[in-house]
Amino acid sequence: MTQVFNFSSGPAVLPHEVLLQVQAEMLDWHGSGMSVMEMSHRGPEFGQILAEAEADLRTLMAIPDNYKVLFLQGGAHLQFAMLPLNFAPVGSTVDFVNTGHWSKVAIKEVSRYANVNIVASSEDKNFSYVPDESTWQRTPDAAFLHYCSNETIGGVEFNHIPQANGVPLICDMSSNILSRPVDVSQFGMIYAGAQKNMGPSGVAVSIVRSDLLGKARSDTPTMLNYKSYADNGSMYNTPPSFGIYVAGLVYKHVLQQGGVAAMEAKNIEKANVIYAAIDASNGFYHCPTALADRSRMNIPFTLADQQLDQAFLAGAEARHLLQLKGHRSVGGMRASIYNAMPLAGCQALADYMNEFAKMKG
Amino acid sequence: MTQVFNFSSGPAVLPHEVLLQVQAEMLDWHGSGMSVMEMSHRGPEFGQILAEAEADLRTLMAIPDNYKVLFLQGGAHLQFAMLPLNFAPVGSTVDFVNTGHWSKVAIKEVSRYANVNIVASSEDKNFSYVPDESTWQRTPDAAFLHYCSNETIGGVEFNHIPQANGVPLICDMSSNILSRPVDVSQFGMIYAGAQKNMGPSGVAVSIVRSDLLGKARSDTPTMLNYKSYADNGSMYNTPPSFGIYVAGLVYKHVLQQGGVAAMEAKNIEKANVIYAAIDASNGFYHCPTALADRSRMNIPFTLADQQLDQAFLAGAEARHLLQLKGHRSVGGMRASIYNAMPLAGCQALADYMNEFAKMKG
Repeated sequence: MTQVFNFSSGPAVLPHEVLLQVQAEMLDWHGSGMSVMEMSHRGPEFGQILAEAEADLRTLMAIPDNYKVLFLQGGAHLQFAMLPLNFAPVGSTVDFVNTGHWSKVAIKEVSRYANVNIVASSEDKNFSYVPDESTWQRTPDAAFLHYCSNETIGGVEFNHIPQANGVPLICDMSSNILSRPVDVSQFGMIYAGAQKNMGPSGVAVSIVRSDLLGKARSDTPTMLNYKSYADNGSMYNTPPSFGIYVAGLVYKHVLQQGGVAAMEAKNIEKANVIYAAIDASNGFYHCPTALADRSRMNIPFTLADQQLDQAFLAGAEARHLLQLKGHRSVGGMRASIYNAMPLAGCQALADYMNEFAKMKG
Repeated sequence: MTQVFNFSSGPAVLPHEVLLQVQAEMLDWHGSGMSVMEMSHRGPEFGQILAEAEADLRTLMAIPDNYKVLFLQGGAHLQFAMLPLNFAPVGSTVDFVNTGHWSKVAIKEVSRYANVNIVASSEDKNFSYVPDESTWQRTPDAAFLHYCSNETIGGVEFNHIPQANGVPLICDMSSNILSRPVDVSQFGMIYAGAQKNMGPSGVAVSIVRSDLLGKARSDTPTMLNYKSYADNGSMYNTPPSFGIYVAGLVYKHVLQQGGVAAMEAKNIEKANVIYAAIDASNGFYHCPTALADRSRMNIPFTLADQQLDQAFLAGAEARHLLQLKGHRSVGGMRASIYNAMPLAGCQALADYMNEFAKMKG
């Protein structure tokens, strides 16, 4: 098979070892004679898979006992509606930091059910930075404070956890969960779609403080009530069992590699390789993100001469460096380098960037 | 590997050939160098997978052009809330046929958002039959009429499509879709979770008449509005791409086998093998379902002497006949024999049933 490096922003590259194991077990999981896709979710085999996935995620993130770990469907998108229905009483106000596309999509949906106060926004500079926390205009009695810890399109990442100030802090961590240690106890809830750092699309995870459950609005659809999942071990209905299985293998893989602290060290090294190629290019390449807020997961960059964009992408494809085209709102290129992207992939991209700049610069 | 026959009610057995193909393509789909799990859902590769899945399902079910085919998440359960939010104005009445567990779960959720009129129920005889349509007490201006075409627990299957009488007919076809031909044009909507006859859990399908879209209640979460999926080719957000890929392979497999008419012939033959074992047992085995309404997909049966249940199950396990324990509300055994269960599996079960009855009877 062709060796490629896949810089997709999600669904994204998975660990090679995980894919090999999924392949090996496809027709017969652990001597059961069944594929994981064929197992009753109520049987002991899947029960073990689910329990191990939860336990491993708890270990990886050091999740305190007073937090529930829920496996859901519908991605982060479904949770944009679940947030106000579960956590914001009718007529209440919720606080949002607006740092980019994913913040905006969440705000749009949440504002249909609650008053939204934007505590700060970086829209004035095309979402290229994280607004300084000292400037945030907070609602003292907000139902919650929401932020997106990594914006995949702008390539902007929080390098700290904001102060909660007594309000439940809720974070969309879809694109940098498991990429670095976080102190879960500072959050009311962390949620994430799996398809960037955890597994295939179709699975989402919520890590929610137990005392926040049970207060959903009376008209909340049962499948949009976090309590339905918490009370039934994520099996109120048939869960996305195969996706949970793959996510569980990813958790084991991260544990084997040394956990999230080891991933962080590796991710810093990986990101530095590409940022160095940008910064050493004498303006041939440009990253629009403020230096302090550069993402380790998604690196957007433009070419000074946009006429070269197509040639750059074609040359990258020829070297099997895939899915580098940037989002239309930023233009240029974007390299998404989640946990499963090996250092060799970042080096291959940096080498190509250097050579392309030398050839065309 | 062990050759087993897996009678799980869902997630359930998948075609062996499909699993082999999934295994072969796991690390490199069609020379792309990527697993389907790693592909951007916006890229040409997944675009092809999704388009073929929809086209093949349209071919299989002869879906008219004025119907949308939508791929969703959340199973049938999520749609229980979507039904009233999308199709029943506030204060309206919806009609339900109550033929068992899945009817009841749907009714419970829908009744939170609309008035529910039970046109007929078979609860008086533990959901062992389909109420005669001539007795149904309909609401003339109902927002819709809902039924479940196959109840997996009671083993009760509709052998005809009810009269719509000018009201949109909505069917939960989760457990017998693609097992027989149906005239889609008689329906307002057909919906189904994939994990019985179509693929892994985490994918659901809705086949909805276009003119019914766009009338959702104003407070409907965007992810619960069918129009969000219809307007965006099932990609309003990241779809459960791997599950759709597997479902697409199942569709191709059914097409190769001759389509749903061929499946029906095979399913009749399969079911007859097991029902014959029950009926020839002189009361050693008993199927509680009314003769005319026996399901071809799920066959519940009890042993006259319940003391033998454990021995029956243990002997079945020893022969690699798996997941035969019945639902607690019916007791005894249940053999789920969806499309992907081979005739050999039904014969192996019938042979074992005959021998067990001979030995213990």
